[in-house]
Amino acid sequence: MTSTTTEKFSFSLHSTDGKARTGVVRTPRGDIRTPAFMPVGTAATVKAMYPEQVRQTGADIILGNTYHLMLRPGAEQVASFGGLHKFMNWHGPILTDSGGFQVMSLSKLRKITEQGVTFQSHIDGTKFEVSPERSIEIQCLLGADIQMAFDECTPYPCTKKEADDSMQLSMRWAKRSMESFENNSAKGQALFGIVQGSVFEDLRQQSAQALRELDFHGYAIGGLAVGEGHEMMVKTLRYTADFLPTDKPRYLMGVGTPLDILAAVEQGIDMFDCVMPTRSGRHGQAFTWEGKMNLGNARFRDDLAPLDERVDCSASRDYSRAYLHHLFKSKEMLGSMLLSWANIAFYQDFMKEVRAEIAQNRFEAFAADIRQRWEK
Amino acid sequence: MTSTTTEKFSFSLHSTDGKARTGVVRTPRGDIRTPAFMPVGTAATVKAMYPEQVRQTGADIILGNTYHLMLRPGAEQVASFGGLHKFMNWHGPILTDSGGFQVMSLSKLRKITEQGVTFQSHIDGTKFEVSPERSIEIQCLLGADIQMAFDECTPYPCTKKEADDSMQLSMRWAKRSMESFENNSAKGQALFGIVQGSVFEDLRQQSAQALRELDFHGYAIGGLAVGEGHEMMVKTLRYTADFLPTDKPRYLMGVGTPLDILAAVEQGIDMFDCVMPTRSGRHGQAFTWEGKMNLGNARFRDDLAPLDERVDCSASRDYSRAYLHHLFKSKEMLGSMLLSWANIAFYQDFMKEVRAEIAQNRFEAFAADIRQRWEK
Repeated sequence: MTSTTTEKFSFSLHSTDGKARTGVVRTPRGDIRTPAFMPVGTAATVKAMYPEQVRQTGADIILGNTYHLMLRPGAEQVASFGGLHKFMNWHGPILTDSGGFQVMSLSKLRKITEQGVTFQSHIDGTKFEVSPERSIEIQCLLGADIQMAFDECTPYPCTKKEADDSMQLSMRWAKRSMESFENNSAKGQALFGIVQGSVFEDLRQQSAQALRELDFHGYAIGGLAVGEGHEMMVKTLRYTADFLPTDKPRYLMGVGTPLDILAAVEQGIDMFDCVMPTRSGRHGQAFTWEGKMNLGNARFRDDLAPLDERVDCSASRDYSRAYLHHLFKSKEMLGSMLLSWANIAFYQDFMKEVRAEIAQNRFEAFAADIRQRWEK
Repeated sequence: MTSTTTEKFSFSLHSTDGKARTGVVRTPRGDIRTPAFMPVGTAATVKAMYPEQVRQTGADIILGNTYHLMLRPGAEQVASFGGLHKFMNWHGPILTDSGGFQVMSLSKLRKITEQGVTFQSHIDGTKFEVSPERSIEIQCLLGADIQMAFDECTPYPCTKKEADDSMQLSMRWAKRSMESFENNSAKGQALFGIVQGSVFEDLRQQSAQALRELDFHGYAIGGLAVGEGHEMMVKTLRYTADFLPTDKPRYLMGVGTPLDILAAVEQGIDMFDCVMPTRSGRHGQAFTWEGKMNLGNARFRDDLAPLDERVDCSASRDYSRAYLHHLFKSKEMLGSMLLSWANIAFYQDFMKEVRAEIAQNRFEAFAADIRQRWEK
């Protein structure tokens, strides 16, 4: 697909197969072919990879974490460096999260009020305040092409009352996020709203409706992949996706395994992000078309086959499993480097195949075949 | 320089400038332009670098460590994988040391006899025996293009008696190494003898003479860079180099900083190896044409200049010092990856410049200029 220069953010749907769909998100920094997997570049680096490698695997966009970047080196600091793209030498689109999720999971002494959240940095205890306004300000300082509304990720499990209160707060924050975005953002930048409501269908419907009234550039589904399990996640996605407009991109945050992605694409999701391919890679676990492999396992000690010849990546083709096993046994950094690269390359190849199968109306057969092979 | 296919090992001298010299070592796996710096690939990997990157910096040859490889994955294991080159995906020449030096510095419960050394692995306590015969056997199993005679690296300081006894033992082992090499090596492989004798001129002369009678393919100078200091090292090199034949390559083992290399080239040394560029890189220290820089230092926090635009390497040119500072502060692997790469690229650029200056009879002025700038 040729990338065309555009000054506007847009989404066009190309083909559908059941609820699964392919399309293109256009941004001034380049096109994003959907369904898309976004490698995670938490602290201004996709861990153990050079940015040009990430691009060469076929990734059109990466994700940056607002929480980590506001703590170190700081949003104003990154802005003074010319923005996140220049700082980290990645020139394609970047999506940033709102920071909300990681404030809840990583920071210390946090306190939530209607205004926002106060917390202490997990690095050095420095006190911070984040509100919807400050979150958007930070995302604008970073120069994110796709920004996320500030929300509270409702914990799982929770009572319906808790889910309702939390969702209502997120919807008030979504409105403030949109107002702040309209006053601060640059031309061509986009803001996504985040549907909350835990596993309650009527709450998800109310949340989606509230966001649609604000007319976001795209819609994320939050509060999933937080312990509810694969079945419940798919069940929730099934109805939640139907509450969203068909002409805007849909993003499932923090997901996931290839099988999770397959199930979500089946429900009409267009975008994904997850630390799994790089984190697993650093721990010796590879994702391949043959399924998962733990390279630290003794069964790979004498295995001279490459990791996965189907994947178009030097890391997957030019080194034996025996060599990768040796690198992990020897705690050599090159092991993490090769497996992070091979895993991101596999994920991108997997998404490419997903798009091709949808375009040819063969997605269900493809998904069934993958499940049959990997779920054994 | 175009690499020509050859079945034989050879060395040709191209130009001299004072005692400094340029030349080419020819091996069946490719040419080595001298003076040459060999990046160290201890455990079948130049740490934190892909082999194709190492090649692209201009490295013609790398070094592998016999001690580490015999312990893990094992010499017979590497041979069963098709040799070290295939195992680690490096297709240029490889030089292996004899294992002697690291047996002394890393292993436990070692015992030296006339026959060889017995010791326990520092990894798991397994007992090993290495003799001159076994060292050469291992180096042949690994498939090393340039192999080193098994020797005892005389500690510093030592008495003249200790230096003499140790050197005499190494000379008897050198003879056994040569006999073993003649019976085991493949066509085009080379064996270097190692001159010992500590800082005693008459012992160095005796050692060089004993080795010359065995007619090695090249001669290394061992027992230096072990604590004697720069001045004493240069003084020892000055006379030791004169005891060696001019028509064979000369290798100073384990050296060193760019200034050490400059001084040794001045004495007629052709080959070097050192862990310094990669080890320093992993600790945030960069080698550049402006001198050394510690990127962890707060003075680089807002420095938007690239590391060193004179060096032909993405790591040196495409990222700011502020970004590198951020990566080291955040303990991100990419910091080690970028600085290892930039340092090896700097070392190769430095050697290229050294060769060019010698070829144009300007080496002394170049060396004086570098010293004047870096010794401030």
